[in-house]
Amino acid sequence: MSRIVALETSDIRFPTSLSLDGSDAMNPDPDYSAAYVIVRTDAEDGIAGHAFVFTIGRGNDVQVAGIDALAGHLVGRELEPLLDDMGGTFREIIGDSQLRWLGPEKGVMHMAIGAVINALWDIKAKRAGLPLWQLLARMTPEEIVDLVDFRYLTNALTREDAREILQAGVAGRSEREAELLATGYPGYTTSPGWLGYSDEKLERLAREAMANGFTQIKLKVGADLDDDIRRFRKAREVCGPDFPIAIDANQRWEVSEAIAWVNALAEFSPAWIEEPTSPDDVLGHAEIARGVAPIRVATGEHAQNRVIFKQLLQAEAIQVMQIDAVRVAGVNENIANLLLAAKFGVPVCPHAGGVGLCEAVQHLSMFDFVAVSGSREGRMIEYVDHLHEHFVVPTEIRGGSYLAPTAPGNGMEMKAASRDDYAWSAERKGADAHV
Amino acid sequence: MSRIVALETSDIRFPTSLSLDGSDAMNPDPDYSAAYVIVRTDAEDGIAGHAFVFTIGRGNDVQVAGIDALAGHLVGRELEPLLDDMGGTFREIIGDSQLRWLGPEKGVMHMAIGAVINALWDIKAKRAGLPLWQLLARMTPEEIVDLVDFRYLTNALTREDAREILQAGVAGRSEREAELLATGYPGYTTSPGWLGYSDEKLERLAREAMANGFTQIKLKVGADLDDDIRRFRKAREVCGPDFPIAIDANQRWEVSEAIAWVNALAEFSPAWIEEPTSPDDVLGHAEIARGVAPIRVATGEHAQNRVIFKQLLQAEAIQVMQIDAVRVAGVNENIANLLLAAKFGVPVCPHAGGVGLCEAVQHLSMFDFVAVSGSREGRMIEYVDHLHEHFVVPTEIRGGSYLAPTAPGNGMEMKAASRDDYAWSAERKGADAHV
Repeated sequence: MSRIVALETSDIRFPTSLSLDGSDAMNPDPDYSAAYVIVRTDAEDGIAGHAFVFTIGRGNDVQVAGIDALAGHLVGRELEPLLDDMGGTFREIIGDSQLRWLGPEKGVMHMAIGAVINALWDIKAKRAGLPLWQLLARMTPEEIVDLVDFRYLTNALTREDAREILQAGVAGRSEREAELLATGYPGYTTSPGWLGYSDEKLERLAREAMANGFTQIKLKVGADLDDDIRRFRKAREVCGPDFPIAIDANQRWEVSEAIAWVNALAEFSPAWIEEPTSPDDVLGHAEIARGVAPIRVATGEHAQNRVIFKQLLQAEAIQVMQIDAVRVAGVNENIANLLLAAKFGVPVCPHAGGVGLCEAVQHLSMFDFVAVSGSREGRMIEYVDHLHEHFVVPTEIRGGSYLAPTAPGNGMEMKAASRDDYAWSAERKGADAHV
Repeated sequence: MSRIVALETSDIRFPTSLSLDGSDAMNPDPDYSAAYVIVRTDAEDGIAGHAFVFTIGRGNDVQVAGIDALAGHLVGRELEPLLDDMGGTFREIIGDSQLRWLGPEKGVMHMAIGAVINALWDIKAKRAGLPLWQLLARMTPEEIVDLVDFRYLTNALTREDAREILQAGVAGRSEREAELLATGYPGYTTSPGWLGYSDEKLERLAREAMANGFTQIKLKVGADLDDDIRRFRKAREVCGPDFPIAIDANQRWEVSEAIAWVNALAEFSPAWIEEPTSPDDVLGHAEIARGVAPIRVATGEHAQNRVIFKQLLQAEAIQVMQIDAVRVAGVNENIANLLLAAKFGVPVCPHAGGVGLCEAVQHLSMFDFVAVSGSREGRMIEYVDHLHEHFVVPTEIRGGSYLAPTAPGNGMEMKAASRDDYAWSAERKGADAHV
């Protein structure tokens, strides 16, 4: 038996705003950051659990404080009972009635819970000697269902529904696992499309994306319609009429504006319109989906929890669901999200990029393929080519596909040197302010 | 010209869990707390702006960290330009693209923004020598409309709609102001209904509530149906068949469970069912509203922002709207909420209680009566009789009505002695843990 002895947190920020990587209509100058946590134990195996919440700079310290507030739930506890019943562990922490008031189940406290849950999964996977996706994909349907909190879901997805979905996927698991290990999981790239890039850079990167085998590119839109038309036209010229090009407005529009703007770009056949308006506006997304059909609506990177995803699906507001590894309360809640998508027959194409999001979320898509939806059809994981060098097990892309990771763990462990080099401090704050 | 010189924060916690005041089906042992902020200036008038976010204990430190993160927006700034354009000030802070990632517009960071906005309104009202409700109610329709961020609202409420609503209320403002000062604003009380109370205490407090002139009482429900039936029956025996008795499930139920449970209590004619399920579940509330009609559905104390309120109204999911003074981004966002309610013709009956919530939210209802809805019909403010003694201008209740406060400010200033006595500290944390 071993114990959790510490929850170590750190505030890590990369000065990405200096290069305008990641610039879009809502986020002109992000500094990709991680509110990072390490769960330390006294076990002889020396294994620690790593995870983080991704933020874009200011406020990363608030997110760290949110994680620190969870120490009381974990430090001093015996580890094995927590790991053996990850569903119960999840429900205990999510159910803290006092902390719940700060959400409930949304924002800083919810993402903080996600970080510690993901860190526990990292320990569990490392102990099992398996990458997270494989650990999950080898659990029985009953074990997986036990991980999910069905509260507030049962008018759309019951425990029995979930069991049936998972049971149906048991046949063929090992074939799909082998296929995944052989061929990977399709990726698409947003690298050409940042708003801050010149047309020349967009064209060059779009050409490279196709040459590298990506199945789709994505352009940021929403700041200026004439610019969007020009940039989309250029992208189409480079990519040809049939290559999928998605667009992403990063919540920039009103409902009516979204419908008009997207229809003005319809001649370029967008593969989807992503985040057209407030991520909280389920009914607004439904109105937009009706107004731009057959162009599909996608959202999810800011969908705060499973209750929002449930409604987006119930209202037929999205045709593509974009989970994020660190926006919700970790692996457990994302399993609920994958099951909801499977129930409604909507493909999941995760949000990634940022720092470490590709490393983390690939495990969920791969688990989905092997054990939940059983399909890669119409599914792909976002890919942005930066900051991977900071991770112990960096994402590997070949021919535009994510190679299935084989190293044990959840993929979120950042190199110690990177954590040190980019640690935020009062001195750095002063220095960066004068750049 | 004066400057903001400091944002002083403090973590204040009252050990209310010891008496089970405030116990309900979701929150068995709250410690009513305030993440408190004082905006200090170098002005010769010595006026400081006070405000807080209400929490129920653990995590109050995270909420304080959220407020601290806003110092960069205010400290060192000239005060008058901020106060003269409170709409612009609001939009600047809410629009911080990096902090926005932590919500967006929900949870810890959103409530933190509410606290600093409310503190600025406190300074503005104190400088004007007016209680907040009167300051707001004497602004022109155009000035009020300028306070609102219409982003994400325009498919339900446009700037022009808001202006028309306010313009229609200009006639009769001074009569309503006089009426309010003479007769106050109706209150209802939740004091009899906490789950942790004995039947005898419930009956005694219900009798007292009627004797004191309150227009409604409220019972907490949702833990055990047999208990709820017994308690509701006793309350009806005390109050008679016609006295309004609302019920509140504090998010305890699934959608189908809510419909069945409320219908099982229908014989006692609940005035409304409050928070039947997740506050994020707009479609779920709409389903419940259809399933329990003509019993009305109420929610809002956990409605994270104006986008959720917009949808609750669009979907006819609520027939009573319950704003909270500190859940959203302060006075400005609550003006948007009041305008939405007026547009949809739904009465606003604010959530209060906690610590300082009565003191704060009464200003919004009184402003609503004088300048927005123009009516007190079917409207009342929740009242819970505790912790008022800690405020510089405590709520005054007479004959079950809130007397209109006349002291300048927003009502949120806590006495210095109370702030000192209940300051949270590492030592107190250790001591309370051993209670």
